[in-house]
Amino acid sequence: MSTIAYLNGQFVLSSECVLPIYDTGIVMGASVTDLLRTFNHQPYRLQDHVHRFYRSCKYARLLPPVPIGQTLEISKKIIENNSKSADGRELCLVYYMTAGENPIYAGAAGLPGDLKPTYVQHSFPLPFHLWKDHFVQGIHCITPAVRHWPPQCLSSKIKHRNRLHMWIGDQEIKRMDPKAVALYLDIDGNIAETGGSNFVIYRDGSVISPKRKNILWGVSLTVLTEILAELRIPFCEDDIQTYDVVTADEAWMPTTPYCLAPVVKINSTPIGDGRPGPMWRKIISRWSELVGKDIYQEIVGADHKVSS
Amino acid sequence: MSTIAYLNGQFVLSSECVLPIYDTGIVMGASVTDLLRTFNHQPYRLQDHVHRFYRSCKYARLLPPVPIGQTLEISKKIIENNSKSADGRELCLVYYMTAGENPIYAGAAGLPGDLKPTYVQHSFPLPFHLWKDHFVQGIHCITPAVRHWPPQCLSSKIKHRNRLHMWIGDQEIKRMDPKAVALYLDIDGNIAETGGSNFVIYRDGSVISPKRKNILWGVSLTVLTEILAELRIPFCEDDIQTYDVVTADEAWMPTTPYCLAPVVKINSTPIGDGRPGPMWRKIISRWSELVGKDIYQEIVGADHKVSS
Amino acid sequence: MSTIAYLNGQFVLSSECVLPIYDTGIVMGASVTDLLRTFNHQPYRLQDHVHRFYRSCKYARLLPPVPIGQTLEISKKIIENNSKSADGRELCLVYYMTAGENPIYAGAAGLPGDLKPTYVQHSFPLPFHLWKDHFVQGIHCITPAVRHWPPQCLSSKIKHRNRLHMWIGDQEIKRMDPKAVALYLDIDGNIAETGGSNFVIYRDGSVISPKRKNILWGVSLTVLTEILAELRIPFCEDDIQTYDVVTADEAWMPTTPYCLAPVVKINSTPIGDGRPGPMWRKIISRWSELVGKDIYQEIVGADHKVSS
Amino acid sequence: MSTIAYLNGQFVLSSECVLPIYDTGIVMGASVTDLLRTFNHQPYRLQDHVHRFYRSCKYARLLPPVPIGQTLEISKKIIENNSKSADGRELCLVYYMTAGENPIYAGAAGLPGDLKPTYVQHSFPLPFHLWKDHFVQGIHCITPAVRHWPPQCLSSKIKHRNRLHMWIGDQEIKRMDPKAVALYLDIDGNIAETGGSNFVIYRDGSVISPKRKNILWGVSLTVLTEILAELRIPFCEDDIQTYDVVTADEAWMPTTPYCLAPVVKINSTPIGDGRPGPMWRKIISRWSELVGKDIYQEIVGADHKVSS
Amino acid sequence: MSTIAYLNGQFVLSSECVLPIYDTGIVMGASVTDLLRTFNHQPYRLQDHVHRFYRSCKYARLLPPVPIGQTLEISKKIIENNSKSADGRELCLVYYMTAGENPIYAGAAGLPGDLKPTYVQHSFPLPFHLWKDHFVQGIHCITPAVRHWPPQCLSSKIKHRNRLHMWIGDQEIKRMDPKAVALYLDIDGNIAETGGSNFVIYRDGSVISPKRKNILWGVSLTVLTEILAELRIPFCEDDIQTYDVVTADEAWMPTTPYCLAPVVKINSTPIGDGRPGPMWRKIISRWSELVGKDIYQEIVGADHKVSS
Amino acid sequence: MSTIAYLNGQFVLSSECVLPIYDTGIVMGASVTDLLRTFNHQPYRLQDHVHRFYRSCKYARLLPPVPIGQTLEISKKIIENNSKSADGRELCLVYYMTAGENPIYAGAAGLPGDLKPTYVQHSFPLPFHLWKDHFVQGIHCITPAVRHWPPQCLSSKIKHRNRLHMWIGDQEIKRMDPKAVALYLDIDGNIAETGGSNFVIYRDGSVISPKRKNILWGVSLTVLTEILAELRIPFCEDDIQTYDVVTADEAWMPTTPYCLAPVVKINSTPIGDGRPGPMWRKIISRWSELVGKDIYQEIVGADHKVSS
Repeated sequence: MSTIAYLNGQFVLSSECVLPIYDTGIVMGASVTDLLRTFNHQPYRLQDHVHRFYRSCKYARLLPPVPIGQTLEISKKIIENNSKSADGRELCLVYYMTAGENPIYAGAAGLPGDLKPTYVQHSFPLPFHLWKDHFVQGIHCITPAVRHWPPQCLSSKIKHRNRLHMWIGDQEIKRMDPKAVALYLDIDGNIAETGGSNFVIYRDGSVISPKRKNILWGVSLTVLTEILAELRIPFCEDDIQTYDVVTADEAWMPTTPYCLAPVVKINSTPIGDGRPGPMWRKIISRWSELVGKDIYQEIVGADHKVSS
Repeated sequence: MSTIAYLNGQFVLSSECVLPIYDTGIVMGASVTDLLRTFNHQPYRLQDHVHRFYRSCKYARLLPPVPIGQTLEISKKIIENNSKSADGRELCLVYYMTAGENPIYAGAAGLPGDLKPTYVQHSFPLPFHLWKDHFVQGIHCITPAVRHWPPQCLSSKIKHRNRLHMWIGDQEIKRMDPKAVALYLDIDGNIAETGGSNFVIYRDGSVISPKRKNILWGVSLTVLTEILAELRIPFCEDDIQTYDVVTADEAWMPTTPYCLAPVVKINSTPIGDGRPGPMWRKIISRWSELVGKDIYQEIVGADHKVSS
Repeated sequence: MSTIAYLNGQFVLSSECVLPIYDTGIVMGASVTDLLRTFNHQPYRLQDHVHRFYRSCKYARLLPPVPIGQTLEISKKIIENNSKSADGRELCLVYYMTAGENPIYAGAAGLPGDLKPTYVQHSFPLPFHLWKDHFVQGIHCITPAVRHWPPQCLSSKIKHRNRLHMWIGDQEIKRMDPKAVALYLDIDGNIAETGGSNFVIYRDGSVISPKRKNILWGVSLTVLTEILAELRIPFCEDDIQTYDVVTADEAWMPTTPYCLAPVVKINSTPIGDGRPGPMWRKIISRWSELVGKDIYQEIVGADHKVSS
Repeated sequence: MSTIAYLNGQFVLSSECVLPIYDTGIVMGASVTDLLRTFNHQPYRLQDHVHRFYRSCKYARLLPPVPIGQTLEISKKIIENNSKSADGRELCLVYYMTAGENPIYAGAAGLPGDLKPTYVQHSFPLPFHLWKDHFVQGIHCITPAVRHWPPQCLSSKIKHRNRLHMWIGDQEIKRMDPKAVALYLDIDGNIAETGGSNFVIYRDGSVISPKRKNILWGVSLTVLTEILAELRIPFCEDDIQTYDVVTADEAWMPTTPYCLAPVVKINSTPIGDGRPGPMWRKIISRWSELVGKDIYQEIVGADHKVSS
Repeated sequence: MSTIAYLNGQFVLSSECVLPIYDTGIVMGASVTDLLRTFNHQPYRLQDHVHRFYRSCKYARLLPPVPIGQTLEISKKIIENNSKSADGRELCLVYYMTAGENPIYAGAAGLPGDLKPTYVQHSFPLPFHLWKDHFVQGIHCITPAVRHWPPQCLSSKIKHRNRLHMWIGDQEIKRMDPKAVALYLDIDGNIAETGGSNFVIYRDGSVISPKRKNILWGVSLTVLTEILAELRIPFCEDDIQTYDVVTADEAWMPTTPYCLAPVVKINSTPIGDGRPGPMWRKIISRWSELVGKDIYQEIVGADHKVSS
Repeated sequence: MSTIAYLNGQFVLSSECVLPIYDTGIVMGASVTDLLRTFNHQPYRLQDHVHRFYRSCKYARLLPPVPIGQTLEISKKIIENNSKSADGRELCLVYYMTAGENPIYAGAAGLPGDLKPTYVQHSFPLPFHLWKDHFVQGIHCITPAVRHWPPQCLSSKIKHRNRLHMWIGDQEIKRMDPKAVALYLDIDGNIAETGGSNFVIYRDGSVISPKRKNILWGVSLTVLTEILAELRIPFCEDDIQTYDVVTADEAWMPTTPYCLAPVVKINSTPIGDGRPGPMWRKIISRWSELVGKDIYQEIVGADHKVSS
């Protein structure tokens, strides 16, 4: 059964969800995005993701062509339809909005005021098997020399796709350790985030996140804070650097696709005893209860055939 | 007669030159680009542009799937073909290479090492009539609060499309003066460049460009330096700020589509007498001789019907 | 009936309150200041303003020639006297102290050690009608490219008059929108303050102020925090940027002359629904109760004749 | 015989050259300035100073109420008149322009658009005896912790009076060594300038000045470069730090009042042999020939009675 | 009776505790350190210091050759032994670990992987008489122009010995006031720490420390926070600058050798009334109770003969 | 035959050249250094190195206990003596001066004013075999996330040993590629230098060095500029970043021990064709002529037995 996507007012087959080479999302990177996942084929934290997406739009001066209510309807329809053809797998749903087709490149020679935003929603099945090592062995983070955008250039508080610097940083560290994940510093040397997740440390019974000025505050980070509050584990935001990670008890990457992954090494130095820690395991367990599914098993039990 | 484009090894109809929503150029902005124009239907400074494009690829860790020689052949073929359907208009040729299709999004779940770059060349006719006011009245530049990427995050020396910050800056200043052009400062407050051109000042008989660390060194800027050398006008690079523009005799924007445009106001303050200056006119004349076409007339004489 | 001012130990007619061109306040900007207003012809938060003024003096190495007690007496006398000739209008009282007369310029050729500070207090009636639009329509803030002094050069925690950068920034944005107010960023791109007020946002039930390192902590900001505490609305300080303002529910400018004004647009983008918000109105109402005067009516009901 | 000044269109007695406390030059530091001296009672480099003053005005958005030609006439008249009452002493002539009287403070409640600039020219006799030690023993420069304005806040390329930071820095170092001169670093730690002069070093046969981005390029610095060109001594601009001063052969302060003074210590460490150097002496001699007066003798031979 | 030290696995006479000139601690500054003192001949906060030392080692990639337990044993043995020969004086115990002997310099030409860390523990009697003036008159802090390392270069959160910049800064300010202590700013101009202590201010009933990103969080600072908690005095971390010190009620330097010293002047300006304050005295008293020794008397009653 | 060193006024056996643990060079890193090599057993560029060493001392406020002439004599004596026991190998001579023994740690309780500098000269045979791969295959440089000291903290223009940050950076990159050399960026992201050499690129017929503000200007870099001048190859200083290295034709590391080494990869990306280039070979050849020894053969022909 075929999957569908939403493109500029219409549902299309996923294979037909393409953009003309003149789109400003391609030409200028003038776009914002968001991404959620399903649990048991239901969208998780749908409202949180969609509202963040609309805030990203507002900051980027993109006027969504449909109201929030309609966006929610579209999402539900795509998830419902595409789940059927997913062999029981969970889905990721992607939101994407660009400033529209560039009239100069397109040959229609209008002024930017004439642009109509391009609006896409599409989904893909979550390839859990890719992250099995993350959960079993834990992640090795390397801080590349490349630094994350400073907020005076572009706010990291929106989810966008100007990530060429991260592509380059990722290439650099993957030639060192193909399984490593690049952890970006801001221009003052503080820990910021990875290309696809937040980053927090657990030390002396507290969890510390980098300050929100240089990061995209993830919905998973919000869920984490809720679970920590339940567990009466203090949470705070502070400027942290490599030292704090090296001397932490545990470190974690909150992220939409797999909720929370353990980081066990930074720049080749073990964090704690260099293995996924007990507090991570405890939080994953509680998270699993909340979503009604064993998150650990979802990842660790995944095999290539099923998940891809 | 229909125009063609080059897409991943094949010539396709321009209307069929589209990218899947999973392409890393769309998903991560992992792409580089370049752009040249024709004079009298011949590519101008073809070698310069193509070599810069290949340097951009190298920095961005993108391995071009074809050698430079073949790239040149493709370009010539597109220009030759598409000029025929351009009603005599000149063309812009765009180079675009991305890191390829994102296997996770695409559902094929490979590792990044498996990516094959996406390679596009396409053209569009130059809409000269859009820039008529630039030449007749001169340009008003406004420096938005948004700053340009610092080189420690991403080198401005490559031509890329992570320009969401410029989209936002442009929106901000266009709501103030719809015809204004945003001129970006670096994070130290030095003049850098606009979203589509370099920027230089002419003062006391010399031309000063911002230092190359924060700019894309344009091919048109190179041509300008060659003309200045002929005219024995000194040229240097220095950190310049708004003060230097306000007190300059003239200011210019070198750029591929219209070679060199006069800037006559910055932040609502006139530069010189607030009109396109005589040295600009002199350089445009010499440039016209070199390319065998009256550049001034090309722009000023353009009308909407012909150029779009 | 004529108004008086205090100048270096004497009460003089306001028209005679002048400074020689050699004064270091003029020659070097070596001065500090403060400013309070009356409510019902009584000085408001007199102690707060005078103590801040004395702290500013201490930081700037200016030794006040009179003790705090005497400064209070002078203030009361000026307000009492000048209120009589104010046709019922409220007053602003200005404190101003400079490093004294520059002996080199004055021709007396002593050393800086010989300087005697210049000390002025003067008043003027509050022109409420000027701010009517602020309250009725709300304020449009624009962030100019010019940035606020960093604290390593000069502490923003004192109230001083080295504000040429703000004069320039104001000129730039007023040519875009004559009614707009310039909102300055610090050199890292964080929101700091306007030339005459603090700036806070209200979002999700909390109020956030920029951190105190880059701002003058206003007495009105202190009053605001007191009212928020009464209303059990959380208040915190954080590094905020344009994104946070764009996505806030409301934004306000606390300031001595009109207490708290609603900001409804930033860089041409509406904040919330683009109109003065209900929480602002609620706070103004509570503030009015505290001072025994309807602040909203004072501004909105002002006409040119009465207030100037 | 009494001296005169120019104030807003009129010549007044110097003692009557005063500013109302509401002037924006006092209230906001919204002013620019310039300063020249006479040699043999003739203005020195009059054109250079006046043109720089007009450039400062343009950057600061101050529209001079009289054209340059009239400014020159006013200057000549003041110098001619005031030289008569100067007992043979040379004069300094000061230019000063502000944004005008602040209508809100003045009670006239207009908008900034209504401001008329305040324009002053005034003179004072040069107190050469104050600088005798500078020439005989040489100057001790100390770098305070306070840093100079960065150009992204306010360009140092104009001559203005927002110098409260320098007042504070001066106070700090004078309590350490009352005769020392504060030499300011920029926010990156490069040498910038003192409160009243430029600063250059002489090393291995070349003269190096800080880069122009963080300094006011003095007219005396221009004269110095002309003399160096005559003497075939290379001159360049570079980022220099304390190390370069400590290891220089000589260091000098070019400045209008006394042309060029020798710096012999920095932060208590001697430069070269800790005494005024031979190259300084040579340049002062050549400078004296050019102006037709023995500059060294003018300073060293000055006594308190004559010069003050 | 002779004192001993620990050097690379052996107890040696203190006089024989020397390092070869090839040690990487000397050649590259590749070392970390820590330092504790005794109270009544017992190590104070031994666990805190040793754990911090091991965290410093981990960050610096130095693998301690002995486990923590053994380190504690060594410390106790040195203190026990050396206290006997200390004439009743208290001791300081120093931990020092380097990356080991540099094989290239040593002529053994191995690769860095071959290095064995050098590990030293040694003690010295505390020269309390040196700090008598600190307690009786209070300390004068001066902020040199030299700035402290930014964390992106080297974390201040470890205790190390790359302090040449502090040696230079100290020399500069001691030539101004031989008894002054250099207080370092970070590269943004915030107060950081002195070469041998933390720095906090007490204002309006609260204690404020610089943020931990630019400082070594001292064990004495931890003790201070414990005492403040007992006394119900709020404590927070914030970016503070010179202004905050100038306008504080008191300022203190927490440090291992003498626990907490009063700072009474900064850059020649008195803090509070310029004398050691009552809250400092109160905290020292409580601290004395906690350690079972009168800390004030220990310092103030010290004489040269006894303590050195 | 035994080798000697110079230590505080005396020649001692190398094995006895040790420093007490209290030396300020160890305790505070308060030291400077320099290093030269022999060619044919004669010191190379002796004057250049010694004068730089004395300049480093002056900046660091260390007063050398012997004049330059005597330093030269000591050097010659050590080289003459130690060459005899070097089996024909060339030597490195190291200069090292510290602020002297720390009286507090040493128990002698004086004040810093009492310090006598520690002065060491010592030599070691050059282990050329270690660098064979550098010449044969070329060097892989990796830019760690750790950044080099900014000049506002400590000038890189002196040769010192506060290099813990480089130790850490080196450890990080060596765990990725054990043969790689760490190339440090400054805090703005510009290329600075490696822990033991300068770094230059060769591109389009010119050689570009990073600007001198963030580097130690090597004596080998000076020699390189002299050879380039002979060969009429332009040389300039500019801010360069990773992009410039990636797109260079060749890159080289000038350094005392092996003069000039080819860099063939940066962050795993080949420079040019990824092999030592012809211009490097040409310069090495000319350099060999100048020093009367085949530098290439010295390295490539070295074997472990002979050189270590």
